[in-house]
Amino acid sequence: MATISIIGTGNMGQAIAALAGRGGHTVQLLGQHDADTPLGDVVVLAVPHAAVADVIAARGAHLAGTIVVDITNPVDFETFDGLTVPTDASATAGIAAALPDSRVLKAFNTNFASTLASGTVGDLTTTVLIAGDDADAKAVLAGIVTSGGLKAVDAGSLRRARELEAVGFLQISLAAAEKIAWTGGFGVAA
Amino acid sequence: MATISIIGTGNMGQAIAALAGRGGHTVQLLGQHDADTPLGDVVVLAVPHAAVADVIAARGAHLAGTIVVDITNPVDFETFDGLTVPTDASATAGIAAALPDSRVLKAFNTNFASTLASGTVGDLTTTVLIAGDDADAKAVLAGIVTSGGLKAVDAGSLRRARELEAVGFLQISLAAAEKIAWTGGFGVAA
Repeated sequence: MATISIIGTGNMGQAIAALAGRGGHTVQLLGQHDADTPLGDVVVLAVPHAAVADVIAARGAHLAGTIVVDITNPVDFETFDGLTVPTDASATAGIAAALPDSRVLKAFNTNFASTLASGTVGDLTTTVLIAGDDADAKAVLAGIVTSGGLKAVDAGSLRRARELEAVGFLQISLAAAEKIAWTGGFGVAA
Repeated sequence: MATISIIGTGNMGQAIAALAGRGGHTVQLLGQHDADTPLGDVVVLAVPHAAVADVIAARGAHLAGTIVVDITNPVDFETFDGLTVPTDASATAGIAAALPDSRVLKAFNTNFASTLASGTVGDLTTTVLIAGDDADAKAVLAGIVTSGGLKAVDAGSLRRARELEAVGFLQISLAAAEKIAWTGGFGVAA
């Protein structure tokens, strides 16, 4: 059983904590500004993208050696017409560069919080897409996801974070425009 | 009822022709190198991305005044690690620039051919995501899609073609890696 630290107590942080709890894992849900509590083997950065740099500044040393899971969608909420990261990059690539001693994964950014709680997207079991360069780290996270009753799919290398962020942005833009519900979105049929 | 010309007789061209036929529309399925047959109100470019330039060179004058539907995924099949269009652009943007007298839409690139035929992605009704800058043109295409029994969702402006191409690439990469089946993929729960 892994010990999972979730930094950020918003909807996504709560939903991921509940998921990991369903799988029987030890979970700590930490406030964004907690800089002291010792962290577990897997650390989920469940804060807005704009807050990630502060968390890394405060927690960088504690994150060394851990599996770090980036769930962010760096949407430009002023224009709602793109992302705040360069088009040939990703939020995750920036985090990985800032944390060379962590194994950084992209996951959960294509899942609305409610679908992590309900376990379904329409009639499909909610699927968590996981991208990263470390196969063992991806397997650990996939195990947490599946033990909580959801499906996990390996989405490829960390470079695929770019496409996952495009999916996340598109899904958010559709929900914001009321084309889909925040309880729905993209499901994955294997 | 619209008259729909589909250029390209591969799996996608056949599936889109069948979809439009189910809706009672007049459909012509044309070979990639047919440069003479008069075209309908809606023209679907159902050829590989690399062949689009040739079709435009041969057919540009005939495409003026029509609704042109780009279904391509400009995947770099040599590296399978990205697209052949610049990261701040899209295949559709290039086509729109080359066809200033057409109303260009992006659609169908996030649908595997088999899901257009079966009408389902897992247990979800197959949804066609449509991006473009002309609301009337999007409504015409959405009408064709829904009359054939599928769902259509307005995915926003033509700039969203970039995200749709990211979705298409990710979906193809997952199927090529046997993480999902070519009969499955991304479904949309409204």
